[in-house]
Amino acid sequence: MGLPDNSIVSIKSKFRKGPRNLITDVPGVRVGHVTLRDPERDIHTGVTALIPAEGNLFREKVAAGVAVINGFGKSAGLVQVKELGTIEAPVALTNTFGVGRAVDALIRYMLEENEDIGVSTGTVNCLAMECNDGELNDIRGMHVKEEHVRQALDNASEDFEEGDVGAGTGMICMSLKGGIGSASRVLEFDGREYCLGALVLSNFGVAGNLRIDGMRVPSADGIMGDGDKGSTIIIIGTDIPMDSRQLERTASRASAGLGRVGSFMGTGSGDIAVAFSSGNRISHYAGDFTDLRTLSENAIDKVFEAAVEAVEEAVISSLYHSGSVTGIRGKHVDCLKDVFN
Amino acid sequence: MGLPDNSIVSIKSKFRKGPRNLITDVPGVRVGHVTLRDPERDIHTGVTALIPAEGNLFREKVAAGVAVINGFGKSAGLVQVKELGTIEAPVALTNTFGVGRAVDALIRYMLEENEDIGVSTGTVNCLAMECNDGELNDIRGMHVKEEHVRQALDNASEDFEEGDVGAGTGMICMSLKGGIGSASRVLEFDGREYCLGALVLSNFGVAGNLRIDGMRVPSADGIMGDGDKGSTIIIIGTDIPMDSRQLERTASRASAGLGRVGSFMGTGSGDIAVAFSSGNRISHYAGDFTDLRTLSENAIDKVFEAAVEAVEEAVISSLYHSGSVTGIRGKHVDCLKDVFN
Amino acid sequence: MGLPDNSIVSIKSKFRKGPRNLITDVPGVRVGHVTLRDPERDIHTGVTALIPAEGNLFREKVAAGVAVINGFGKSAGLVQVKELGTIEAPVALTNTFGVGRAVDALIRYMLEENEDIGVSTGTVNCLAMECNDGELNDIRGMHVKEEHVRQALDNASEDFEEGDVGAGTGMICMSLKGGIGSASRVLEFDGREYCLGALVLSNFGVAGNLRIDGMRVPSADGIMGDGDKGSTIIIIGTDIPMDSRQLERTASRASAGLGRVGSFMGTGSGDIAVAFSSGNRISHYAGDFTDLRTLSENAIDKVFEAAVEAVEEAVISSLYHSGSVTGIRGKHVDCLKDVFN
Amino acid sequence: MGLPDNSIVSIKSKFRKGPRNLITDVPGVRVGHVTLRDPERDIHTGVTALIPAEGNLFREKVAAGVAVINGFGKSAGLVQVKELGTIEAPVALTNTFGVGRAVDALIRYMLEENEDIGVSTGTVNCLAMECNDGELNDIRGMHVKEEHVRQALDNASEDFEEGDVGAGTGMICMSLKGGIGSASRVLEFDGREYCLGALVLSNFGVAGNLRIDGMRVPSADGIMGDGDKGSTIIIIGTDIPMDSRQLERTASRASAGLGRVGSFMGTGSGDIAVAFSSGNRISHYAGDFTDLRTLSENAIDKVFEAAVEAVEEAVISSLYHSGSVTGIRGKHVDCLKDVFN
Repeated sequence: MGLPDNSIVSIKSKFRKGPRNLITDVPGVRVGHVTLRDPERDIHTGVTALIPAEGNLFREKVAAGVAVINGFGKSAGLVQVKELGTIEAPVALTNTFGVGRAVDALIRYMLEENEDIGVSTGTVNCLAMECNDGELNDIRGMHVKEEHVRQALDNASEDFEEGDVGAGTGMICMSLKGGIGSASRVLEFDGREYCLGALVLSNFGVAGNLRIDGMRVPSADGIMGDGDKGSTIIIIGTDIPMDSRQLERTASRASAGLGRVGSFMGTGSGDIAVAFSSGNRISHYAGDFTDLRTLSENAIDKVFEAAVEAVEEAVISSLYHSGSVTGIRGKHVDCLKDVFN
Repeated sequence: MGLPDNSIVSIKSKFRKGPRNLITDVPGVRVGHVTLRDPERDIHTGVTALIPAEGNLFREKVAAGVAVINGFGKSAGLVQVKELGTIEAPVALTNTFGVGRAVDALIRYMLEENEDIGVSTGTVNCLAMECNDGELNDIRGMHVKEEHVRQALDNASEDFEEGDVGAGTGMICMSLKGGIGSASRVLEFDGREYCLGALVLSNFGVAGNLRIDGMRVPSADGIMGDGDKGSTIIIIGTDIPMDSRQLERTASRASAGLGRVGSFMGTGSGDIAVAFSSGNRISHYAGDFTDLRTLSENAIDKVFEAAVEAVEEAVISSLYHSGSVTGIRGKHVDCLKDVFN
Repeated sequence: MGLPDNSIVSIKSKFRKGPRNLITDVPGVRVGHVTLRDPERDIHTGVTALIPAEGNLFREKVAAGVAVINGFGKSAGLVQVKELGTIEAPVALTNTFGVGRAVDALIRYMLEENEDIGVSTGTVNCLAMECNDGELNDIRGMHVKEEHVRQALDNASEDFEEGDVGAGTGMICMSLKGGIGSASRVLEFDGREYCLGALVLSNFGVAGNLRIDGMRVPSADGIMGDGDKGSTIIIIGTDIPMDSRQLERTASRASAGLGRVGSFMGTGSGDIAVAFSSGNRISHYAGDFTDLRTLSENAIDKVFEAAVEAVEEAVISSLYHSGSVTGIRGKHVDCLKDVFN
Repeated sequence: MGLPDNSIVSIKSKFRKGPRNLITDVPGVRVGHVTLRDPERDIHTGVTALIPAEGNLFREKVAAGVAVINGFGKSAGLVQVKELGTIEAPVALTNTFGVGRAVDALIRYMLEENEDIGVSTGTVNCLAMECNDGELNDIRGMHVKEEHVRQALDNASEDFEEGDVGAGTGMICMSLKGGIGSASRVLEFDGREYCLGALVLSNFGVAGNLRIDGMRVPSADGIMGDGDKGSTIIIIGTDIPMDSRQLERTASRASAGLGRVGSFMGTGSGDIAVAFSSGNRISHYAGDFTDLRTLSENAIDKVFEAAVEAVEEAVISSLYHSGSVTGIRGKHVDCLKDVFN
């Protein structure tokens, strides 16, 4: 869980890490995986679901913001998050061709929980985000099914694995085995402690560019033949009360974290960051006015710096927790531990 | 087809209309519908597919731009169109909860046509856009299936119906029966004629706000109980050579056309406009450079004005071609012709 | 003041108009002009200043949002309004080549009022917006000076003239004499009345496109020889508590108002809308948190529709209140009243 | 000039550096400074002007794109660059309160060169960008005058100094003396060599965060009392034929370069990047069509990576070339060389 503190891959931190060093250190956040791994059938894929807060998300939405760092991506639901500044359903991560099934599963999940949707009120916006795992996985087989997404939702808990699991099963990062990584930081405002966490699905970069806390990591060459075709999905969660504009600003800082680990945001890497806060819940059936608590802009630099740090560490953690794998068309991908051995 | 010239609902035009007065006047554009109508089961929905150009769209993309006029919408694929400035697959319109199936059907269609996708090259971006037809349709039933989307693609031709067909089957506009509308304009540049067309899926507005060529239309009151919960999807196509920035500018002019018919872009109306041009095809396997012909900014005002006119007329045409309907929960919606009778 | 209710140019309104039918019906808003008119020297220009709220704007900012409807404009200060969601100084409108002097004058005004700026705190963002009055005015002469901007600030009051005054002195709209127009609407939320007002600097459109409440207005042809080279600046102010995201959404509705009067947002027309609310004041020296009251999205449609109506009426009012003029190079521009006589 | 190759602060490079390792390695680019330094009067400021290409910029514009990484900035002219995708005048960098004078000087320069502006054609968009040097400079004194900007334009040449000169005179970066830095890279496409260069005005960051090629640099603590109040202006120039969308994408990669040197894009740091290409000149008086050569998206990753590298190195170079200084209110700022001695 999180990145072990004394590891060779540790990031020097300005802030205290959360108890799990995972995004689930943020109260109410739960994460669940379904890993689909069947080497005989070239299946190396999966689903990771994130539930951003306790309670009925549709009736009590969380504030959210989006930063499309590089829009070469096929995610669904981002446009409405940007317009309305809220997330009103769990979030699913999966492979590029699983987005349709993820959206369907999320809609059905929300319809079950909310009998008013599509009857006495409007519809629901479901966020499904993706990376391309086609270098290792038979992505054309479209092996992710609705039931897998549902199962990932059902698996969601405060403890979850990192590395080559869930949506991360078939991902490659900097020519090494990538996947799911997470980190968290504890911040104090007005005498109270809050938590900010990052969850990353890492699938970007080219061989030889990896930097761990600044140090360049030698890498097996030539593995990603024709460049950066991956993507990165970054979810930043917090219980610090912030509004959607501030969360959009926070999400945009992910680019600095990616830069620190060596990314140049390659054209084919759909780098998308979403930030949410459960520090304000926005009621679906509100009266004319809604009172919000927001962080003052004077105090926001700590959030920005913690976000950059957490994203940087989450990427490293995704590499640290992954094992090597041989996927479709015989492609072998080493893992970070192999590089250091 | 198109809006009849001498009708009470005709729009005075500064430009000559195309022969069909439909978006299919743009060479290579085809549109197909599947209408799902089963009043016994409260089904009033469907799919409309648009093929933007001849040939293999993935290998020879069309230039494109996006304007998110009001992002209360669940469309998929917009982010990449904005980043890369291209459309590389047919476009599907359907109801809000059909987006997942539409994306799946489009992916499978593209995989069949392109064996390299997901193997020797990356993935494919499929654009599926939606409006909420839950006022008339059992949207919770998720009745749109993959085969319907495929069938709409197979039905695509230069001639297509307007009104309460395809994705327009269950839509409501200004408290009247809305749906699919289209219009086209002929423009001359450098001594050659080009065409610009608009396709609209109209599902917005409140009773009493409709203006036809400026004239306010009295409307049955109170039909849309709690305001503007709809959406509008606008597709603008042309063979005028333009680049993605210019197409984004063109798409953004749709808001003026919506304003003219009486829209105020209600919060719940996901008004999304996409513009594409087949005047430049962008090769997927291009060498280092791609030569493009673009319209000069000096000459672009004709495009903007024609786009506003075509969008305005396409909305009116969607109303003109629709019949009245009684949908789920006994809701009855009059059609425009009823108002004038 | 405002648009006379029974005039031939009246707009049918869904909402009650404010007592002055001006943006200054919003409590605390003041507007001042300096008109520079010297036909001998071909000077037809000026400055209009708007003070958005009472008190020290730098220490107690107003919430704000920006919509760049068409970015062919040279305004200064917009980027920070978009990022931080606040206005912290008065706003100046003038001609395109007066922006530099307007910024300087606003900075000096703010430095006088705030000894901490540039010493113990950062700098200040001053919003100066512009239209090109070069069709009538000797714009190359750069006749707007710092003292004119300062004088416009000093002239600011709740009563102000519309038409060919201040920044509107040399503007042309739809080939007729344009300039400054304003309108306001009264809205009720939670049992209390609030006001929303619009101030427009109209300098857009081509001959023959004008629509007043939908009705097409015959227009003197050919006056603007080579198309839409103008611009429109729209300021929407309110005391309804709203956050910056909501104000950005409100500002973007200006495009529908422009569409209603006949604009197609020509390429050369820098159409920029800014919306602000004094319903929340954001403290420069806030502690860690700031509590805000925001309008619920459920209640926002009234704001959007009132904004569209007020912008539409403000444009018409700018035409209604202007007289005909003969400017540089002998160019004569009729006024709206001439058309109806 | 540029960063010495064997220095302790050298950046390991994937691409060959240009002959000067300055943005002026891009053919046609010239840079000029005016340094205003008068410690008696607490003046530590200046102007840096960049001319992006040979010939008449208004008649033959360069393609351009903008990335507002953090919009806490008061620059003028950005909105139009974003909308139209061109730069049509030299660019000026100066302190925050010098933007007005910089805009005026650029306008007058353009009016002299172009008698048609404001007469037979529209106006001209001038880009003036800024950082806050108020920590060292008497910024309230507004010491930058129009003649300084003009002089910087007149000084423009292929050779120029880096460090605490021109607009960089009063800047602070990572608590060390910052200012002007530059770097360049040579890239090959289709068998021909092109150049990409970066010019940076560095004024961001907090003590202790600096990383040089990944290595953390110990820093004098506490110098910037209350956090990141600076800004960073980044100009990326190239002769690679690219369109405005691609240049916008390139500009946005600057954030990764800032991340690598340790920035977290603090709230008060107005980080703005502009990229231009002289590989296409866009004619002001073009006929209906303009033919452009664009880089294929397949080939763009080299541009992105070179841009990240050049921005990273330009920041380090700005530190390397600056000397220590004592400014207003007795504030002393060490330089990078002091840290290593």
